[in-house]
Amino acid sequence: MDTKLLDIFEAFLQENLPKTKSFHPFYNEAYAQMIKGGGKRFRPLLLLNVVNAHNPLLLNASLNAALALEMMHTYSLIHDDLPAMDNAELRRGIQTLHTTYDEATAVLMGDALNTDAFFVLMHSPIDAKTKVRLCEILSFNAGSGGMVLGQAIDCHFENSPLDETELEFLHTYKTARLIAAALQMGGVIVGLPNDKESELYAFGLELGLLFQIQDDIIDATKSKEEAGKPTHNDTNKNSFVNLLGLTEAINKRDAKAKALKIKAEAFGALSSYFQKILDTNFK
Amino acid sequence: MDTKLLDIFEAFLQENLPKTKSFHPFYNEAYAQMIKGGGKRFRPLLLLNVVNAHNPLLLNASLNAALALEMMHTYSLIHDDLPAMDNAELRRGIQTLHTTYDEATAVLMGDALNTDAFFVLMHSPIDAKTKVRLCEILSFNAGSGGMVLGQAIDCHFENSPLDETELEFLHTYKTARLIAAALQMGGVIVGLPNDKESELYAFGLELGLLFQIQDDIIDATKSKEEAGKPTHNDTNKNSFVNLLGLTEAINKRDAKAKALKIKAEAFGALSSYFQKILDTNFK
Repeated sequence: MDTKLLDIFEAFLQENLPKTKSFHPFYNEAYAQMIKGGGKRFRPLLLLNVVNAHNPLLLNASLNAALALEMMHTYSLIHDDLPAMDNAELRRGIQTLHTTYDEATAVLMGDALNTDAFFVLMHSPIDAKTKVRLCEILSFNAGSGGMVLGQAIDCHFENSPLDETELEFLHTYKTARLIAAALQMGGVIVGLPNDKESELYAFGLELGLLFQIQDDIIDATKSKEEAGKPTHNDTNKNSFVNLLGLTEAINKRDAKAKALKIKAEAFGALSSYFQKILDTNFK
Repeated sequence: MDTKLLDIFEAFLQENLPKTKSFHPFYNEAYAQMIKGGGKRFRPLLLLNVVNAHNPLLLNASLNAALALEMMHTYSLIHDDLPAMDNAELRRGIQTLHTTYDEATAVLMGDALNTDAFFVLMHSPIDAKTKVRLCEILSFNAGSGGMVLGQAIDCHFENSPLDETELEFLHTYKTARLIAAALQMGGVIVGLPNDKESELYAFGLELGLLFQIQDDIIDATKSKEEAGKPTHNDTNKNSFVNLLGLTEAINKRDAKAKALKIKAEAFGALSSYFQKILDTNFK
């Protein structure tokens, strides 16, 4: 099921990424490099699986929203990797944009993906009221009160240890908000009642935090080749491994994964998908 | 008239800029610094004057869209001033963000303003279909097929002279697209027929190009204090002054201003506003 949705999404992405005509020698290539370059497509698949579980007839109409999420996520990766932030040379197993081209190109392509996410979303073949709600959710969770706040805290406190509450705040904003938005947007497309939308959103926040703890553990324990990006990179950063130690971080991850498996049971048609995510990633 | 609209807009901006609660020590200040720091509010005023000329009852409902335009424009200034692009220490007469704080903060605050522009737009007190059209226009003219393309060409060809057609392409994208979008968005809000919308957009493209020629002349002839930003900065850049020489650039500006004054006569209730812009800036 998930492979099928991933194939559908990848085909859509390859065909529907905006292209531009100009005399710039590598504009379209630079624009597409990081988003076509790979990635698990986790956020699009969350949205598409919500739609698929409740109303598979709406899958095609959901692809623009799924692509908008992936564009927003990809812009954030491009900017996070900039020399002024993580200064990373590798992402998704390929060279980062500022390494392939230059810093100005990386800033601008991130900017374009950020703005274009809304352009793509507005061209969804769905009614205007739904598009407005999707746009509200995406912009709220990605903007100054969402993902950007998390990244700003991460950068500002790089050499100042945060406590566990602050660290959870950081990652709830930096990572979990957009993941929660993906689930909620799926719920909006299929017309779930407000309380069901909110439950999906709350589950997404916890799922996002769990993945972030996992990411910190990967950074501390895996090689660059295994992770597809530079690792052992977080030595001065606020990470769950630095704060709690590796053993306690693993314990926290396992306890959260276990708790989420129980919560996942409440999601009816979606339960088996959530269980599969948790089983695959947190055995 | 314009002073009144400017006052209304400024008051709205001061009250309605998104604010965030967190333990970050200067997040809201950094977010607001460049947008509250001044500027002529040219794009918001274009939009508001279109609305005012056709249906002043819709002025209040237009303020979110006007603010969205100013946020989009301000993000682009913050990123254009980054060390990897223009490396400017002054803008709107005040310190740039990366000078006050650091580069990461400047990247992130630009990112947030870009995304939040859509959040603010979606909260306009107008119908969903109109919001979707405004969002399409804003994202199209600001994103990869609009403003960003112009800036990317400007950066890439910094030390390679462009010909006049290419230079006009650059500035049509970098500057004129968002100015044209402002006029078109005003037209959408008051429900102008499509051909009138298109005429406003085409006029905006020419007006934007005219202002860019003027900007190049200011850069070549004014001091930092007079311009409120570093000048004599374009020596390696593609500018109309570098390409044509100062005298020919001035001639081109004057000819364009004269032609636009004639075109402005066709805009009925808006004519006097356009005439005033042209008379004030291009005597």
